[in-house]
Amino acid sequence: MSHKTDAEIAHESPMRSIGEIAAKLGLPEGKYEPYGRYKAKINPLNIFSQPGKQGKLILVTAINPTPAGEGKTTVTIGLADALNRLGKNAVIAMREPSLGPVFGIKGGAAGGGYAQVLPMEDINLHFTGDFHAIGAANNLLAAMLDNHIYQGNALNIDPKRVLWRRAVDMNDRQLRNIISGLGKPTDGVMRPDGFDITVASEVMAVFCLARDLADLKTRLGNMLVAYTQTGTPVYARDLKAHGAMAALLKDAVKPNLVQTIEGTPAFVHGGPFANIAHGCNSVIATRAALHLADYAVTEAGFGADLGAEKFCDIKCRLADLQPDAAVIVATVRALKYNGGVARADLGAENLEALQRGLPNLLKHIDNMKNVFGLPVVVALNRFVSDSDAELDLIQTACAEYGVKVALTEVWGRGGAGGEALAREVLEVIEQQPNRFGFAYETDSGVRDKIRAVAQKVYGAADVAFSAEAEAEIAALEKNGLDKLPVCMAKTQYSLSDDAKLLGCPSGFTITVRGITVSAGAGFIVALCGNMMKMPGLPKVPAAEHIDVDEKGVIHGLF
Amino acid sequence: MSHKTDAEIAHESPMRSIGEIAAKLGLPEGKYEPYGRYKAKINPLNIFSQPGKQGKLILVTAINPTPAGEGKTTVTIGLADALNRLGKNAVIAMREPSLGPVFGIKGGAAGGGYAQVLPMEDINLHFTGDFHAIGAANNLLAAMLDNHIYQGNALNIDPKRVLWRRAVDMNDRQLRNIISGLGKPTDGVMRPDGFDITVASEVMAVFCLARDLADLKTRLGNMLVAYTQTGTPVYARDLKAHGAMAALLKDAVKPNLVQTIEGTPAFVHGGPFANIAHGCNSVIATRAALHLADYAVTEAGFGADLGAEKFCDIKCRLADLQPDAAVIVATVRALKYNGGVARADLGAENLEALQRGLPNLLKHIDNMKNVFGLPVVVALNRFVSDSDAELDLIQTACAEYGVKVALTEVWGRGGAGGEALAREVLEVIEQQPNRFGFAYETDSGVRDKIRAVAQKVYGAADVAFSAEAEAEIAALEKNGLDKLPVCMAKTQYSLSDDAKLLGCPSGFTITVRGITVSAGAGFIVALCGNMMKMPGLPKVPAAEHIDVDEKGVIHGLF
Repeated sequence: MSHKTDAEIAHESPMRSIGEIAAKLGLPEGKYEPYGRYKAKINPLNIFSQPGKQGKLILVTAINPTPAGEGKTTVTIGLADALNRLGKNAVIAMREPSLGPVFGIKGGAAGGGYAQVLPMEDINLHFTGDFHAIGAANNLLAAMLDNHIYQGNALNIDPKRVLWRRAVDMNDRQLRNIISGLGKPTDGVMRPDGFDITVASEVMAVFCLARDLADLKTRLGNMLVAYTQTGTPVYARDLKAHGAMAALLKDAVKPNLVQTIEGTPAFVHGGPFANIAHGCNSVIATRAALHLADYAVTEAGFGADLGAEKFCDIKCRLADLQPDAAVIVATVRALKYNGGVARADLGAENLEALQRGLPNLLKHIDNMKNVFGLPVVVALNRFVSDSDAELDLIQTACAEYGVKVALTEVWGRGGAGGEALAREVLEVIEQQPNRFGFAYETDSGVRDKIRAVAQKVYGAADVAFSAEAEAEIAALEKNGLDKLPVCMAKTQYSLSDDAKLLGCPSGFTITVRGITVSAGAGFIVALCGNMMKMPGLPKVPAAEHIDVDEKGVIHGLF
Repeated sequence: MSHKTDAEIAHESPMRSIGEIAAKLGLPEGKYEPYGRYKAKINPLNIFSQPGKQGKLILVTAINPTPAGEGKTTVTIGLADALNRLGKNAVIAMREPSLGPVFGIKGGAAGGGYAQVLPMEDINLHFTGDFHAIGAANNLLAAMLDNHIYQGNALNIDPKRVLWRRAVDMNDRQLRNIISGLGKPTDGVMRPDGFDITVASEVMAVFCLARDLADLKTRLGNMLVAYTQTGTPVYARDLKAHGAMAALLKDAVKPNLVQTIEGTPAFVHGGPFANIAHGCNSVIATRAALHLADYAVTEAGFGADLGAEKFCDIKCRLADLQPDAAVIVATVRALKYNGGVARADLGAENLEALQRGLPNLLKHIDNMKNVFGLPVVVALNRFVSDSDAELDLIQTACAEYGVKVALTEVWGRGGAGGEALAREVLEVIEQQPNRFGFAYETDSGVRDKIRAVAQKVYGAADVAFSAEAEAEIAALEKNGLDKLPVCMAKTQYSLSDDAKLLGCPSGFTITVRGITVSAGAGFIVALCGNMMKMPGLPKVPAAEHIDVDEKGVIHGLF
């Protein structure tokens, strides 16, 4: 295993020109738009206008995340690299990182070790500007809404019932709650207001669920932004904002193409929150990947209870996608943490704790196989501290579910460390039946859909709805917005809505405190906890140590 | 003259690949970074590492702007096109447009008619993301400052004396004055706050005055952001923000290369306000232009009293640039407007009004020749309504100052309509003496520097300082910030500080209401009026009519 930093490994890795990477996807010059020498955008019109493949879609998901780290993104990258090493034709579709968190706590979102996408600094900073474009579209709508109120308020919008918030791609707690429109009479209309980080904007969710530019525009127009004084919903289209918003996003919707350290093409595009939104890269990028390669490896946010469930029930449903296999990433350390071991003690063998934590993995296996009907492989990201007895225990338990465990060492060895996993994935795709289905049907009632996820996927005994949630469900029904899929916003750390309930809890009740609707994205959000949509900076922000030299080389980023 | 719209003309004009444009500047593949097929960024390290030319610098400025429109940007573009038509080797260095205003009142900032830079939609929207990067750097500093206060406030910053404001590239009056940090105790510290449009941020001014990345970082660190409870200045460097801010700007500082309709290379880079800042494109772009071509045509904001004065006294002084000629753009219509004719009546011949308005042009000629010591040519942008007698009157009056008048028709005819001007410019550069100098020396007192500009350049009788301005000058002196050049923030419509005093007023007093300092950019701002740093949207914003079709073609932008 290397002890180099991610940045050192990235800087030592020679990059191929983006033209060479595009050529691997059958895209000659003229069919991609270079952004510098190592990034490109691909116009979907150039992809779907040519005959395509019908690639296999491999979802990488994970057990509930722990502070020990599981390595879902590195497995995604390493698996695609490994498939290419085995002579297959594989591509990655993954999320773009948000700029804001880069300045908070040190750490990037472009993989790590020898399983990285490059150029990692660019990808973690502005990249090709997509998130800025999304922020601008979000803020144009906000400006038009407040301007409408200020200029006579023909729609009779209630300034206290504006749902639309402003956005900035920065960790800035100071902007969570503000009063805007202060000053002189010409300075707007005073009202409570606030900012979310850009990735939490509904525009991001819309962006990631749109099939094309026309669909994007329609969805943007359908976003619910406010209520009138008489309680009538006001949509973005009522403000005539959706055309200009789509114009702002015309280039952003083109998937970004980059490469892994090993030269595997990677679409890195879009990145919505995985709690108040669905947490997957754009539909356009996933469809492009399936059109251009035989295998598309993608990932979903957080653990399988949140990420994979939404990947299936929201993204695949809305985009008519059918996954071919699910990889569940786990580590011995994370399972022991789920079994109650303190973080400092995770290096020591502890079979009892592992036995207690293992049901977390088994529940996710059961869900992916039996709720969503997919062939499953477990990727066990190996650490030097893992004992043979611990690895055996996991393999034996998984075998009872008919699921193979592949050991992976992608962080330290790149694609070579993912070959065992790649072979298992290829085998289950070929040999196991695919009975892909959803956890619920969208024409069920809102409460029934939430109950289905809570009971089938989380293992909850029951679901409780607050009075506020009940009122909001009634409003959805009244406004004809109740037939959408549900997006559960709960803690990622537990199958329950209590972050401290590790392993595989049972007998718990999920409490839905509130309901909102992302009518443009096309889902109902069930709030099962306080979801933070604007992070803050720590006492010593990572930004204090980030620097750039006179040659433009960034230091201290990761 | 064509009656096509700017967008129609732009769409009909075939673009050369950006590689072909870069080749005209001696930049082969590998020496430019393509952003799509028609835009590129040029790393200054790739420019200045090779032997360069010592191009002639031609400044295009204008009479005081009027609602009649003068066409300064079209003349800038048309003049460069014309120089190339005459076999010279010319390049443009001009400002990037701001995104926000695009959604307010219809109209772009990439020239017009047959004197445009392309691709005009891209240039007017996100372009290569520079302004978003500047906004992000601005807002990172804001987040770090508020985080510092929230996390214990070791520097003892007074929340009521925070000077640093947040930024967004949007016309959004609602954000001019806000209270931030509301909510729970974990949601920051409540204080008065507000947003400016990104182009009004000091980061933009710093960006445009920096010589290179190292200088940029130093200047960012020098920005004054707050005072402590005991009145001590707090700089960005005290918050350790400047390294990360510079990292965010590492690609933005590379000049953007595009082309005119006629294929002239154009650097379009940076765009600070011309009242509270100096109103010119980046120093890096101007120096790149002079290094790569024999003639660099550039422009300055507003009329010559604001734009050209700051171009000389701030930009050229700080960057050691020496202009070779000044072109002053005027129109018969605008001069008649200066002579008191209502906008609706500008089409009719009116020699008396022209005679009254003409002194505005003559004053600017006198300033450029005798205050700044430059060879001058007047570019008279021709309209069909101009009578021969009117044109004669202007030519005769200018001749008395030893200045030639060239008629231009660049809007309707492109470079062909600028050839007469190009010939005159070449002639004055060769034949007239260049005695370039400044209106004042920076080691003078703050009041003296302001008086020098007001009396020499504006023709003011006197300058009055408010008690507030006096106190702020004392603070500058105390903190050692008084030896910087001054940046006058006054109305652009008059040589005086009263927008209604047209023509060439005399006997007036300039009132300095306040003084601020842009310590990183390196100038003292004298506020002679209410300067709007955050525009609003009109009752029917242009955004309502902007749309994009399924092929990504934007409609209704211009």
